Amino acid sequence: MFDPITLKLNVDPFIESALREDITSEDVSTNCVMKENTRGEVDLICKQDGIICGLQIFERVFTLLDEKTKVEFFVKDGDTVTKGQLMAKVYGDIRVLLSGERTALNYLQRMSGIATYTGKVALLLKGSSIKLLDTRKTTPNNRIFEKYAVRIGGGNNHRYNLTDGVLLKDNHIGAAGGVAKAVRMAKEYAPFVRKIEIEVENLDMVHEAVEAGADIIMLDNMSHEQIREAMAIIDHKAEVEVSGNVTAENIAKLADLGVDYISSGALTHSAPIMDISLKNLHPVE
Amino acid sequence: MFDPITLKLNVDPFIESALREDITSEDVSTNCVMKENTRGEVDLICKQDGIICGLQIFERVFTLLDEKTKVEFFVKDGDTVTKGQLMAKVYGDIRVLLSGERTALNYLQRMSGIATYTGKVALLLKGSSIKLLDTRKTTPNNRIFEKYAVRIGGGNNHRYNLTDGVLLKDNHIGAAGGVAKAVRMAKEYAPFVRKIEIEVENLDMVHEAVEAGADIIMLDNMSHEQIREAMAIIDHKAEVEVSGNVTAENIAKLADLGVDYISSGALTHSAPIMDISLKNLHPVE
Amino acid sequence: MFDPITLKLNVDPFIESALREDITSEDVSTNCVMKENTRGEVDLICKQDGIICGLQIFERVFTLLDEKTKVEFFVKDGDTVTKGQLMAKVYGDIRVLLSGERTALNYLQRMSGIATYTGKVALLLKGSSIKLLDTRKTTPNNRIFEKYAVRIGGGNNHRYNLTDGVLLKDNHIGAAGGVAKAVRMAKEYAPFVRKIEIEVENLDMVHEAVEAGADIIMLDNMSHEQIREAMAIIDHKAEVEVSGNVTAENIAKLADLGVDYISSGALTHSAPIMDISLKNLHPVE
Amino acid sequence: MFDPITLKLNVDPFIESALREDITSEDVSTNCVMKENTRGEVDLICKQDGIICGLQIFERVFTLLDEKTKVEFFVKDGDTVTKGQLMAKVYGDIRVLLSGERTALNYLQRMSGIATYTGKVALLLKGSSIKLLDTRKTTPNNRIFEKYAVRIGGGNNHRYNLTDGVLLKDNHIGAAGGVAKAVRMAKEYAPFVRKIEIEVENLDMVHEAVEAGADIIMLDNMSHEQIREAMAIIDHKAEVEVSGNVTAENIAKLADLGVDYISSGALTHSAPIMDISLKNLHPVE
Amino acid sequence: MFDPITLKLNVDPFIESALREDITSEDVSTNCVMKENTRGEVDLICKQDGIICGLQIFERVFTLLDEKTKVEFFVKDGDTVTKGQLMAKVYGDIRVLLSGERTALNYLQRMSGIATYTGKVALLLKGSSIKLLDTRKTTPNNRIFEKYAVRIGGGNNHRYNLTDGVLLKDNHIGAAGGVAKAVRMAKEYAPFVRKIEIEVENLDMVHEAVEAGADIIMLDNMSHEQIREAMAIIDHKAEVEVSGNVTAENIAKLADLGVDYISSGALTHSAPIMDISLKNLHPVE
Amino acid sequence: MFDPITLKLNVDPFIESALREDITSEDVSTNCVMKENTRGEVDLICKQDGIICGLQIFERVFTLLDEKTKVEFFVKDGDTVTKGQLMAKVYGDIRVLLSGERTALNYLQRMSGIATYTGKVALLLKGSSIKLLDTRKTTPNNRIFEKYAVRIGGGNNHRYNLTDGVLLKDNHIGAAGGVAKAVRMAKEYAPFVRKIEIEVENLDMVHEAVEAGADIIMLDNMSHEQIREAMAIIDHKAEVEVSGNVTAENIAKLADLGVDYISSGALTHSAPIMDISLKNLHPVE
Repeated sequence: MFDPITLKLNVDPFIESALREDITSEDVSTNCVMKENTRGEVDLICKQDGIICGLQIFERVFTLLDEKTKVEFFVKDGDTVTKGQLMAKVYGDIRVLLSGERTALNYLQRMSGIATYTGKVALLLKGSSIKLLDTRKTTPNNRIFEKYAVRIGGGNNHRYNLTDGVLLKDNHIGAAGGVAKAVRMAKEYAPFVRKIEIEVENLDMVHEAVEAGADIIMLDNMSHEQIREAMAIIDHKAEVEVSGNVTAENIAKLADLGVDYISSGALTHSAPIMDISLKNLHPVE
Repeated sequence: MFDPITLKLNVDPFIESALREDITSEDVSTNCVMKENTRGEVDLICKQDGIICGLQIFERVFTLLDEKTKVEFFVKDGDTVTKGQLMAKVYGDIRVLLSGERTALNYLQRMSGIATYTGKVALLLKGSSIKLLDTRKTTPNNRIFEKYAVRIGGGNNHRYNLTDGVLLKDNHIGAAGGVAKAVRMAKEYAPFVRKIEIEVENLDMVHEAVEAGADIIMLDNMSHEQIREAMAIIDHKAEVEVSGNVTAENIAKLADLGVDYISSGALTHSAPIMDISLKNLHPVE
Repeated sequence: MFDPITLKLNVDPFIESALREDITSEDVSTNCVMKENTRGEVDLICKQDGIICGLQIFERVFTLLDEKTKVEFFVKDGDTVTKGQLMAKVYGDIRVLLSGERTALNYLQRMSGIATYTGKVALLLKGSSIKLLDTRKTTPNNRIFEKYAVRIGGGNNHRYNLTDGVLLKDNHIGAAGGVAKAVRMAKEYAPFVRKIEIEVENLDMVHEAVEAGADIIMLDNMSHEQIREAMAIIDHKAEVEVSGNVTAENIAKLADLGVDYISSGALTHSAPIMDISLKNLHPVE
Repeated sequence: MFDPITLKLNVDPFIESALREDITSEDVSTNCVMKENTRGEVDLICKQDGIICGLQIFERVFTLLDEKTKVEFFVKDGDTVTKGQLMAKVYGDIRVLLSGERTALNYLQRMSGIATYTGKVALLLKGSSIKLLDTRKTTPNNRIFEKYAVRIGGGNNHRYNLTDGVLLKDNHIGAAGGVAKAVRMAKEYAPFVRKIEIEVENLDMVHEAVEAGADIIMLDNMSHEQIREAMAIIDHKAEVEVSGNVTAENIAKLADLGVDYISSGALTHSAPIMDISLKNLHPVE
Repeated sequence: MFDPITLKLNVDPFIESALREDITSEDVSTNCVMKENTRGEVDLICKQDGIICGLQIFERVFTLLDEKTKVEFFVKDGDTVTKGQLMAKVYGDIRVLLSGERTALNYLQRMSGIATYTGKVALLLKGSSIKLLDTRKTTPNNRIFEKYAVRIGGGNNHRYNLTDGVLLKDNHIGAAGGVAKAVRMAKEYAPFVRKIEIEVENLDMVHEAVEAGADIIMLDNMSHEQIREAMAIIDHKAEVEVSGNVTAENIAKLADLGVDYISSGALTHSAPIMDISLKNLHPVE
Repeated sequence: MFDPITLKLNVDPFIESALREDITSEDVSTNCVMKENTRGEVDLICKQDGIICGLQIFERVFTLLDEKTKVEFFVKDGDTVTKGQLMAKVYGDIRVLLSGERTALNYLQRMSGIATYTGKVALLLKGSSIKLLDTRKTTPNNRIFEKYAVRIGGGNNHRYNLTDGVLLKDNHIGAAGGVAKAVRMAKEYAPFVRKIEIEVENLDMVHEAVEAGADIIMLDNMSHEQIREAMAIIDHKAEVEVSGNVTAENIAKLADLGVDYISSGALTHSAPIMDISLKNLHPVE
């Protein structure tokens, strides 16, 4: 769950914007036929196996519309759910249930999709000490939801954005005039609480990065053999991240080499949604 | 392309919000090493075959950061592109190119992914008169981008949101007290420029919907045989939408029956992104 | 009443903006003399006969300032009220009653003025099957309030804005290259849930519009005789809207011809306000 | 004209909000038929006699949509215009002309209506030294436009809002414990640059207000005879405002008595709009 | 205390913005170690002698994060507090106490610093009838807090901003073509509830200002002797403000001369903060 | 200077808010006397010795109001300036120069005050390898300006806010159940690019922190002797921050001990402003 502070300050504005995207003046269909507050109840049903994620957001969509809406949950974020499972019941003004349904599900399906997919990848790493990282390849205006879903699925978060982490890539290195200079400039400029990460392409750069005192070294596009040599050069003087395809075979090899992190953009940009629906809406007195 | 009015009023706020999501105070890495405006150039390269979509948004990310950024395009939205193809060159302050890169690509990759996927589904409909429709199962705060991508991929847009279209589902019908009543109430209440669509589950409801003068009838979860009978009952007195799985086999059958529309949530919620990158950044004088 | 969802998402922001327009830092007069919360009560009195409209907005102004404010209503939107009638009592922190008074009344007076004026025009249509429509000639940033008031007064809403309805006027027709082309382009481009309306100026255009399958035909500036001929051509194949002056005489004629709708900008742009005031504020313990 | 600072800081946000009210995603009609930028020209024609007001706002609507739009004016705010007069020509992207038309006219018609109506009332005061004042009875979220229109029509502005002027009414007086106490509390609390105005209902209160050093005294609901006595008591020690009906007869009497100001809510809440339209849109190369 | 209306409309948005400045996605440190709501209590301790100010804002920071947070105050704004004094206890979710602490204290320390400093200056004026005024030299986006603190410290507020007070300086006078013209133009243009203040530099200007009927005359940079002569010329026909250094010696002299106001920018731009801290946080059940 | 991206995305909104704080509808004084655009020029003069900082913000205030305003600078941020020095000339519409003056100076004076004060403290550290750090004790809604000023003055930035740095204080340690647990939980939860800083109060905690692998250890309120022992325990395995009073004497001692950082809240919360003014405004043709 998001803590209540993050929810109010940094999550609610996105949910409210999403609701206004879907309701620019009114929900015409609902208003055609329901002029009054009628209490109703609806079931949240899983239509696919996976890891559920985003239940708090699902609930928040409804309570932002009407604080009297109640959701009774039978599962919690991170639980494995199966097709057909009843996950929650939502009680409230039927108009609120109908008008909020799509936005609530759009969040829940996407977040659960990412958690489920991350869970599968994380499973490949099981037994190794390598940690799985996400990237900034998130859907615009959905990062806070997607990075949370990665954690629920068993992954870890890389930097949140361009402000809170330093990652020096080839162009930064070029502008600085070399690996050593780039690291030194970063140590001088960046707030001192940030680790300095640098992306290197060959063993010379690895040498330079280690000497310059980089905190994290990202090995870009290196062969297995190169990675082995790089690890020897680094010799625990910096943390090591490898980015790229995460397959069972890759993992086994990288684990042997002692790499610390493996990052994958696919966790957030290509996870299919989990199919979930609201069923059996009926009035209750 | 979005017309310039929509771009300013309704697209820019989302892009600006996405940029502020990625840069809460500054791009630290870039600021460590680049203190001055240096002009540079970078190539937009396709890394996968598909239908490109979102080039204007890609460009807008950079010009919102710095109106002097120039993009030279070699393709346009809707073009089929192939792996390795140079699609554009971006010229400008290197700091702008670096800081805007991720947000620009996040939009372009997602929109192209949707266009490509939609294009594949639309291909199945080729030769038939059935039109492919999207749904409201879009990513929160990305609907304007995703519905556009569906059009570029060869699909058509269903209603934009709850405000601009009437779709009476089972719960609306229940609240109204039947199909006929629901349609009548909608005709009374809804602004008269909206068509009235109603979702029906059996042939009795089809009869009622036709008699009540529904403009569009959505056949929900009907067997092929039921659809055939429904089409006979409707007899061109309303448009007909079928929602559900779009497979080659389904399509052929539905086309024979004279269905007008087939809608698919997967177009927007489950299209994988298209892999695209910015390469070869270098200073130019 | 607005449903609670529309109220929160799309009405509240306007009310809050109006309150900030009237109170940029504080209500100085009130703060000069009232340093503490004192409970008070005030009467809402009608000073003119008419149709009351906007009571929920009137109340919302006060409850947005202080959720503990209570309003006891003796009438409801759409009721006919008469000069001197006590319509409601408001209880709460006197500072809230004083600071919110003007904004609350500004909304209530304007909405009631529109409902009252619409009611008078709608009366002229009584007995005919013609429906009275509003237009987009609303006060900027007040459309949601004014279109609601038209409904309360007995009118119907035309499209809400440029996004949710298609109305092809002479310039659109010109750009398209004729009536038939314009309608065809609209059917291709516009989300399929929108009806296509086209404005025509002569009988040739009427012919073309009918053939092209326009859903609604607006007869612009036609003589009574022309309208008669147009109706014959249209022959129930499309709905018909006439815009212009609504006088008793006009109405009788148009009703005979079978026109479906008559629209009037004056409903929203020229209705005088209804005079209403808050009286007898006094402290209560 | 609004100065450029007010325009940017405090006018533009309202115009942008009004445009977003009318275009929640796109102008569908225009986009159906115009896919490209085509330059066009359209005439701004007066359809009623009156005082024109709001030309800068009219222009701003278009330039906010597209800064390349040009307006050539043949009149300026405050000019008397007559039915049929060509007031301006607008050149630009036809899509911009079409999409901005309604919002631009909604502002111009309302502001000109207020200026025209104010002009008529101000005429009644001609020759006297009495100044005509507006009130806070303005349309929500339109005060900056309406108060400006009052000035253009020949009126003067009372306080802008609850923050920038002190007006002690019966309830404030009651809370303070009398006229003298209320004035003293206001002098103590309110920023010293504000004049203190107090509303009085009888001659005793007039005495007290004068002694307490009120800057402005508003005579509420007094007979002609009472006003005469009040003026004698006040004897130029405070400015005097009378509010209420402004008729030719009233004016003559009040002018004789030496009253300084007469205020009227009707200037802003009940002025009918001036009919104005955009005509003859045609492409230009 | 701020009245509840000002708090909601005009104070809360600044506090929320300040909280979002400090928490762009989440409070990482707190979230590392506290996953659940634990109730706690913390003491608000004064670490320096002075006048406390801003307690309501301090509380509001926490209640905006979580409305269930409770603050028990042992002092109120304007009280003299001493080093070591327990001023309040805050109870609530420990995560809220930790995440809101810095923002709450940043406001409280600054406001108390200004109140304390103003109190010291106001003391110098004790016994004289001169009133101490603040200026517009406030910290950007903190004016509403700082002007309030001046009042709590014993000062008075000059105009709030450029909109609600007229102060004609040398450049305005130059543009108008002289003192008399400037005052006349102001009387014509400015809403009539505003006093007209003019800044003068020599005795000729004083003469002119008095004759033109200025409400307030600000004597700029005049010697004691010049001020004496100016006071004689003004002779109670206008209020008199002197700006500049406020020292015990100055004050005595100005008081003798009958000056009404002395203004000081230092009250808001150079008051050091008062040191205050939250101590002894501990869980409570 | 701020890079152009930060300026647009994260600085401009604060400046615009500050301008709207000062001009809620219009600058009345200026509008009384200046109805037209007149070009003028004004000098930016230093009235006190110090380090100038914020020139870009000063300029931005004017160019946000009118992009045609030009500023010619004779100094740059970080330069030492002296009383009476001409630092820049501003050219533009005199109305813009007058209306923007106060906001522009309010920023410039505060930022220069902080840079100047930081410069003095940094001087005390000269010759040592200790770096001076700021804190989060900044003025609400001014952090981006104040942290920049610290850098210009020769200081370094600690974490920007609660999101981008981990600092485990006594309450976090208490909640976690000890130093070791707190550090471990932080390493597990926090995005891996963040360094883990922990505040310790005694030598046992120092031991524990080192063993747990904290990246930075903050020694809180330790005696000189304790610090010496702590440094021996830490033995370069973590960076060391000391917070508290920065005096010449302290510095000398800490420098000998090999402490890495010393942080000071006073840099931002108690620096007096630098006196700066705009003089000699005159029209130019």
